[in-house]
Amino acid sequence: MDRYEEKELQQEMEQVEKYLSDCLRDPGYGGAVGNILRDMQMSKGKRLRPRLLLMASRYGDGQEPGRREKLCRLGALVELVHLASLIHDDIVDDAPLRRGLPTTQCKYGKDMAVYAGDLILSRIVQSLFRDGFYRVGALFGQAVESMCLGELGQMECRGRDDITVEQYMHNIYGKTAALCRLACLAGAVESGCSEDVQAQLEQLGINFGYMFQIRDDLLDFVSDTEEEGKLTQMDFREGILTLPVLYAMQDPQAKDRIIDLLREAKEGTFTGEHARTLKTIVTASGGLARAAADMEMYAERALQAVETLPDHGVSAVFRELLQTKCKVSAAG
Amino acid sequence: MDRYEEKELQQEMEQVEKYLSDCLRDPGYGGAVGNILRDMQMSKGKRLRPRLLLMASRYGDGQEPGRREKLCRLGALVELVHLASLIHDDIVDDAPLRRGLPTTQCKYGKDMAVYAGDLILSRIVQSLFRDGFYRVGALFGQAVESMCLGELGQMECRGRDDITVEQYMHNIYGKTAALCRLACLAGAVESGCSEDVQAQLEQLGINFGYMFQIRDDLLDFVSDTEEEGKLTQMDFREGILTLPVLYAMQDPQAKDRIIDLLREAKEGTFTGEHARTLKTIVTASGGLARAAADMEMYAERALQAVETLPDHGVSAVFRELLQTKCKVSAAG
Repeated sequence: MDRYEEKELQQEMEQVEKYLSDCLRDPGYGGAVGNILRDMQMSKGKRLRPRLLLMASRYGDGQEPGRREKLCRLGALVELVHLASLIHDDIVDDAPLRRGLPTTQCKYGKDMAVYAGDLILSRIVQSLFRDGFYRVGALFGQAVESMCLGELGQMECRGRDDITVEQYMHNIYGKTAALCRLACLAGAVESGCSEDVQAQLEQLGINFGYMFQIRDDLLDFVSDTEEEGKLTQMDFREGILTLPVLYAMQDPQAKDRIIDLLREAKEGTFTGEHARTLKTIVTASGGLARAAADMEMYAERALQAVETLPDHGVSAVFRELLQTKCKVSAAG
Repeated sequence: MDRYEEKELQQEMEQVEKYLSDCLRDPGYGGAVGNILRDMQMSKGKRLRPRLLLMASRYGDGQEPGRREKLCRLGALVELVHLASLIHDDIVDDAPLRRGLPTTQCKYGKDMAVYAGDLILSRIVQSLFRDGFYRVGALFGQAVESMCLGELGQMECRGRDDITVEQYMHNIYGKTAALCRLACLAGAVESGCSEDVQAQLEQLGINFGYMFQIRDDLLDFVSDTEEEGKLTQMDFREGILTLPVLYAMQDPQAKDRIIDLLREAKEGTFTGEHARTLKTIVTASGGLARAAADMEMYAERALQAVETLPDHGVSAVFRELLQTKCKVSAAG
């Protein structure tokens, strides 16, 4: 483990926070807008996406201070895409909490939340052009399109019992993998990586994203208490079938029982007792284990991308990140 | 009137339609997304904003076919900003109809409408970068920010009886003038106008926008039937005070009666009878006439900008457009 890399990364993440605050500045017209943006500055996430971007950008030729500063700024913009998407997702999910704090739509209403998300998107666009991020700007647009299609795809699947693993993978590509791809690819392009290295980092981002979302879906099952401000089996309660459930449904007996439970969810009569039953079914039918195996497969693919990359101190940081984020199976 | 200019403009507007369809193409994942985008292609608006852009761009040096083609594409992008904003505005307004057709949120639900608007914004960003619109890209972001602030500002004012004309002007800058400014300024910049000409066209756009929104607010009063898919006095019904009402409220007697009516609106008990009373009060107190005078003042300012511009065939088209769009006062 290269401690020097980690220390530098930490310093750069402080720069990212500075740029984030800058982009979330109050436009100064008074009213709730300023409060919404202040709330967003307060909500400290893991900043995983800028971290991925900065890590990926280590493999490029352009490491002079001016370039690194621009990369920190770009990292902030990737995080802002994430924050804007959370605001719009919370409208759709009717979520009261996010990271333990009230959501924008819950505190200020859905209407405010629509424009607060749009406002952040407009700030991202302004910064992409003003800072001259011409080589990666279209990638930002592409990622947002994928994110919309993932969420729209998930909404199409809601309440249906005939969802395929393929559809699930399409949806989580948009929900999570597309933005992790953007983080790694934009970092690679903007730091001047070769096309080969760009392609490896793109694969690293996509597979990391798949792993990360499957982990999230597993956590929704294995934890009995609230985790990151979310109730357990929230997806199922909203009629969304995630990977553990989809695998469980390949067992015909489990499938019938899950369809009964899905009906309860749709009718709003899904109780804690039902949640425990679902967990038992999904565990017994091997759904949980198969989803965990998939998660490990995507982690392995991400790791393979790391190993194909030129040897660099940051590779160890990537390896550790992959290990840390692929830990839910043991807890389950 | 230069008929040649008008004919050319018409031909270019057909190009704009082609690019619009292109940007609204079905991403091909099935489901409602494709239907939403198809609906948007069907909804033919007046395409006022691309028209402004193409007209403004006539004053520049760059008139070769390749440049004109790019300007048509840019015109389509300005219209897409408008279309995306309508989708998000309809969510907030809970509007069932737009241009006589059901709104996206009404037909497919608010959740779909959030992402459909975001999807269009993502397509705009992709096109701005792919087509190399680096000089005007930040202006697009700036316009979207102003639009959000205008809508957020209007929401802050909703239901309040202490709104100033200044606040109203700030809100309609965002609602309408900012995008008309973008259309004229982007057309000027991208066609290679001098900085002086850019500044005049920017003023033309802003003042046209103010005129156009005040006209819309007047139409809400003077027409007794449905106009462009909107019920009359919709703004007041939603607790929003527009310019005719704000001027009427400068008469203390009228003010008290309007506050009573606003209470009815807030309590959801505002009837057709109340609407007729409000119209009588606003007319008698001179609110309607003063708002109409303001509309004409902004039209005059826009016209002054036209007259300051270098002499050109398109100036006559601008003059006619300003005359046509400034006609509600006669009807009132």
